[in-house]
Amino acid sequence: MLPFANDYSRGAHPKVLQALVDTNLEAQPGYGQDAYTKRAAQKIQTACQLPDASVFFISGGTQTNQVVISNLLDDDEGVVAADSGHINFHEAGSIEYTGHKVLTLPGVNGKVTAKNLQAYLTDWQADENHGQMVAPGVVYISFATEVGTLYSKQELADLAQVCHQHHLPLFMDGARLGYGLMSPANDLTLADIAKYCDVFYIGGTKVGALAGEAVVFTKHNVPKRFTTKIKRQGAMLAKGRLLGVQFDALFTDRLYFKISQHAIDLALKLKRSLKDKGYHLLVDSPTNQQFIVVNNTQLAALKQHVDFSFWENVDATHTAIRLVTSWSTTEAEVDALIALL
Amino acid sequence: MLPFANDYSRGAHPKVLQALVDTNLEAQPGYGQDAYTKRAAQKIQTACQLPDASVFFISGGTQTNQVVISNLLDDDEGVVAADSGHINFHEAGSIEYTGHKVLTLPGVNGKVTAKNLQAYLTDWQADENHGQMVAPGVVYISFATEVGTLYSKQELADLAQVCHQHHLPLFMDGARLGYGLMSPANDLTLADIAKYCDVFYIGGTKVGALAGEAVVFTKHNVPKRFTTKIKRQGAMLAKGRLLGVQFDALFTDRLYFKISQHAIDLALKLKRSLKDKGYHLLVDSPTNQQFIVVNNTQLAALKQHVDFSFWENVDATHTAIRLVTSWSTTEAEVDALIALL
Amino acid sequence: MLPFANDYSRGAHPKVLQALVDTNLEAQPGYGQDAYTKRAAQKIQTACQLPDASVFFISGGTQTNQVVISNLLDDDEGVVAADSGHINFHEAGSIEYTGHKVLTLPGVNGKVTAKNLQAYLTDWQADENHGQMVAPGVVYISFATEVGTLYSKQELADLAQVCHQHHLPLFMDGARLGYGLMSPANDLTLADIAKYCDVFYIGGTKVGALAGEAVVFTKHNVPKRFTTKIKRQGAMLAKGRLLGVQFDALFTDRLYFKISQHAIDLALKLKRSLKDKGYHLLVDSPTNQQFIVVNNTQLAALKQHVDFSFWENVDATHTAIRLVTSWSTTEAEVDALIALL
Amino acid sequence: MLPFANDYSRGAHPKVLQALVDTNLEAQPGYGQDAYTKRAAQKIQTACQLPDASVFFISGGTQTNQVVISNLLDDDEGVVAADSGHINFHEAGSIEYTGHKVLTLPGVNGKVTAKNLQAYLTDWQADENHGQMVAPGVVYISFATEVGTLYSKQELADLAQVCHQHHLPLFMDGARLGYGLMSPANDLTLADIAKYCDVFYIGGTKVGALAGEAVVFTKHNVPKRFTTKIKRQGAMLAKGRLLGVQFDALFTDRLYFKISQHAIDLALKLKRSLKDKGYHLLVDSPTNQQFIVVNNTQLAALKQHVDFSFWENVDATHTAIRLVTSWSTTEAEVDALIALL
Repeated sequence: MLPFANDYSRGAHPKVLQALVDTNLEAQPGYGQDAYTKRAAQKIQTACQLPDASVFFISGGTQTNQVVISNLLDDDEGVVAADSGHINFHEAGSIEYTGHKVLTLPGVNGKVTAKNLQAYLTDWQADENHGQMVAPGVVYISFATEVGTLYSKQELADLAQVCHQHHLPLFMDGARLGYGLMSPANDLTLADIAKYCDVFYIGGTKVGALAGEAVVFTKHNVPKRFTTKIKRQGAMLAKGRLLGVQFDALFTDRLYFKISQHAIDLALKLKRSLKDKGYHLLVDSPTNQQFIVVNNTQLAALKQHVDFSFWENVDATHTAIRLVTSWSTTEAEVDALIALL
Repeated sequence: MLPFANDYSRGAHPKVLQALVDTNLEAQPGYGQDAYTKRAAQKIQTACQLPDASVFFISGGTQTNQVVISNLLDDDEGVVAADSGHINFHEAGSIEYTGHKVLTLPGVNGKVTAKNLQAYLTDWQADENHGQMVAPGVVYISFATEVGTLYSKQELADLAQVCHQHHLPLFMDGARLGYGLMSPANDLTLADIAKYCDVFYIGGTKVGALAGEAVVFTKHNVPKRFTTKIKRQGAMLAKGRLLGVQFDALFTDRLYFKISQHAIDLALKLKRSLKDKGYHLLVDSPTNQQFIVVNNTQLAALKQHVDFSFWENVDATHTAIRLVTSWSTTEAEVDALIALL
Repeated sequence: MLPFANDYSRGAHPKVLQALVDTNLEAQPGYGQDAYTKRAAQKIQTACQLPDASVFFISGGTQTNQVVISNLLDDDEGVVAADSGHINFHEAGSIEYTGHKVLTLPGVNGKVTAKNLQAYLTDWQADENHGQMVAPGVVYISFATEVGTLYSKQELADLAQVCHQHHLPLFMDGARLGYGLMSPANDLTLADIAKYCDVFYIGGTKVGALAGEAVVFTKHNVPKRFTTKIKRQGAMLAKGRLLGVQFDALFTDRLYFKISQHAIDLALKLKRSLKDKGYHLLVDSPTNQQFIVVNNTQLAALKQHVDFSFWENVDATHTAIRLVTSWSTTEAEVDALIALL
Repeated sequence: MLPFANDYSRGAHPKVLQALVDTNLEAQPGYGQDAYTKRAAQKIQTACQLPDASVFFISGGTQTNQVVISNLLDDDEGVVAADSGHINFHEAGSIEYTGHKVLTLPGVNGKVTAKNLQAYLTDWQADENHGQMVAPGVVYISFATEVGTLYSKQELADLAQVCHQHHLPLFMDGARLGYGLMSPANDLTLADIAKYCDVFYIGGTKVGALAGEAVVFTKHNVPKRFTTKIKRQGAMLAKGRLLGVQFDALFTDRLYFKISQHAIDLALKLKRSLKDKGYHLLVDSPTNQQFIVVNNTQLAALKQHVDFSFWENVDATHTAIRLVTSWSTTEAEVDALIALL
């Protein structure tokens, strides 16, 4: 089977795994106090051009969203997100588990727009009953979004400006940050993201690691006693080195960016081919997720040879599916997929 | 000022208050074990034509929704509601506080329709990723709704059928149940509601009581150790008699229904007058809440003499407002309001 | 039956109930914005000799403890209490419901001592693993305590000093505050309590009201958007006047203190009599709760004529029971009880 | 520095890491649906002699305790534990975070005894106020305990009997299960544990894995939709294979038991030597944690060469410390430590 269902079907990039092997028998302190975690944090500060950023490592994306958002919110606040936001659908209510509402805005190509956010915040302020409503407390965006799209530098700057006017931290879910950054359609640098976002995370699980996301607080805004809170939420690994060693490897010799570039090159090769073959693209995605519509005959045929994701029913005879490349996809796999389509 | 802002601006119906006076110095057990609470429960069972219903008394509507819904849901479940549902907007995130998501369907005149619910449940079942999504666990409706509309008997029967097919309890928020039942547009009896709903509450705060809602479990479906759970959620009064005595009075000589009828008669007199005067009615409400659009000049003039509720901005020069009658509204007040409009 | 089981078996003091009757048909704003709530708050500020105290009214004691404590604590903090503290036993886990641990110290006659608190805080600071432990965030005490005892002025001052050194707010549960204040053994004034405590509440449910506790924040330390948080926790009454009117009456002409004095006078008459008759007093309580040991024969006999509370099994043939007076106890009832004992 | 501070200072056992290397580039389904996770579960079923046990893999111990306990408890229930239980102290309030109280019994050498549990449950049942108290819902024990001690087969059988009489699931925290099982003082098999416990976990983080604990439900008692609940609590890894592959290796050729044996052999060599040298052992531990008292001079000297854990202050001049061996400790390290002591 050709593995295009998602970007987490293989283990770690070989260099990342090798780093685990190389450091395996060193005794190191637990709970993120090891030398590799510290070194990874420094490398990320450097990559972000923000030496005083604070960096924490958490095992997975849902957990990271849960821990970060719940600790940024005051008790009666909720998190503003696009209705298509991952936290609103596919995280099993993990934000509500922490006692907070996801306040949804209509997504525009998967994005929260500055205009929609401004309108929402203005209406909320004007509502005489807002004392009986959940207050907006954080703005959540994804880069790349759940449908593969990107915020432009201007869009992100505009959004950040609205957030900061209203004293709302802007949090970016970067589960696929590498794939977003390396898209030819992207005009943002990692330093730009660190500048505009109050908090964001650099996704590892989908970009070369066995597990792990690097959370970056950019504005001296780490929640008080944050590591205790991480522990309380069950999100602290005893062997924090597992995450530190991997990110240390990912941020050595730009590995994170190189392997992301590889996935993007293959995704765009696939996209060009899909267009050439006349497939309807559900979204014009410049990143590693491509969404196409197939009829039921095609669907059945593909299932024999390809692992892909069901996306949504289009009509009685058509289905939208998702095809995903990753750092581990090979050109041969893409070519084989193209031949099948 | 003419009091049309809401249906909770005055104290209790004089007969209800008199019952508190009459019983005041009797020593009674606490925590809902008193004789009046028991008698009120029995009267409600009788009124519902359901002798084995279980009845509990809770101080207010938000608290009742919170306690009932959270105890009906399994941990990973959410409550399905119309997007206009009170629990989704004006209860300050009290459902999310308990760890559960409000799963919204587009309201149709403030109502959840059987068709929309069926479509949502079918899609949810069909979604291959639903293991990573919040599962529907309870269906929440309001009667009368937040915009004053009513479910017909057929609509409620259809909704109940969909719920029961999917093993979802149907819960009715009856904060304004009396006003719904006594509307000439209504074809449901209290017994019908007890038949179709798995749980519902009979609102007291807005219908003649100082505080109190009577929750009715109709299907031998009281959560295990429910009173302990009520206590844990801070919702147990030491002097449960405060609620029991009031509901005992409200369900003596049909007081609850008579005072609701009074409010409806006045609301419909007002509605007819508003129509005659050419006001645009935002919703065709057959109950005690009426919604009209006024221009800014009218708005400013009204504010001098009338307490009403802001509802929403219509455009730069028009505003929708809400006018509400209650058991305590006098005909003179309605006439004065009509004269002003 | 003679009603000595608790201090909440009757309704409201007649003057309190009359105030509800007198104001019943006035239209007032909801949610605590009514004139009576404001007036009650002012009278309490005056009684506390603290014009800039902030006063909120909540329906019951468990709910008040839950709302106040959870909103004073940071997410990873717990509340320090005596092991006999009401929040640790008889509130059904309502603090844990909000996500926080009750950190217990051994009670000394039901009290947290400055010495024990200081030792605990010193040890906690010194523990190298305290980053993996719940941090102390609030200190909870009761006055009178659950066993009827009182903090002296010196004890409270010492405790407050330790709290403030460690930046821990001191919160007093005053469910029985009136009974504590009016004991001849007490040397604290209401103003002293307002001075030493960061937050405390003046209990109404057990001291003359149908329901209601008045929470006093004394140090400009009201949680941000506190009313929204109260609403979210289900603790906001639509008809806030129910509480405001009652406290307005209780703080008119020192009613709160006079009716507390009445209960204390009767409790101490009972206590003298118990001592004279040779009963073993489990605790030397100077307030309205008296604890005695009876043998099983006495127990069975008493049950025929008296409502009292089971306290604890002493041995196979002896049981400790609790006898409680209140504002509503009559001298005739006390005399009848004495005659029976 | 000699690494005796804990049992998680090194990476994974080389065979475990090799398994990750060997399987790294295979494409596998996510979220625990991969072939290795399934195979590991089967091997654990076999090792437990319980083919219909259900096995789940979670990243760490605190998270496992949190997820398992919260999903076994009804909303108003708490978990019974020894006061020395890990969940009561060093997990940062992670149980309370889920809304539940830890109900403590005095530990006897770190253990909950059947006698103490029976007495507590009998008292709870007899307490007339238990409707206002947290109900016991799960019994939590550790094996080996936090102080290195073990339950005998008889002790465990007795405890299980009390639990089952009261319909309370018995849950064993097996963070150090391997070290407990391989102690010469132990008379329990893994199959015994599976027989007596309703749920337990086989610790990986401290016994050869980079991360991971294997939770075993032994009585067809998996919570409904457990994987969704795990996801909601942030405890689901996208690459579940990370845990599955490691446990597959640990349960191949009895690796888990062999490496545990190694740690025990070295711990007991150390213990004998400590005794010979006249050190006071704080606890008579037959497992991989040894607790000794040193004076301040010794303490300062040791700190130069050994990583150990502070345990508690004994008096002004003495401190108790913890020395821990693991699968990765070498005989040379133990010999060097002995030479230093």
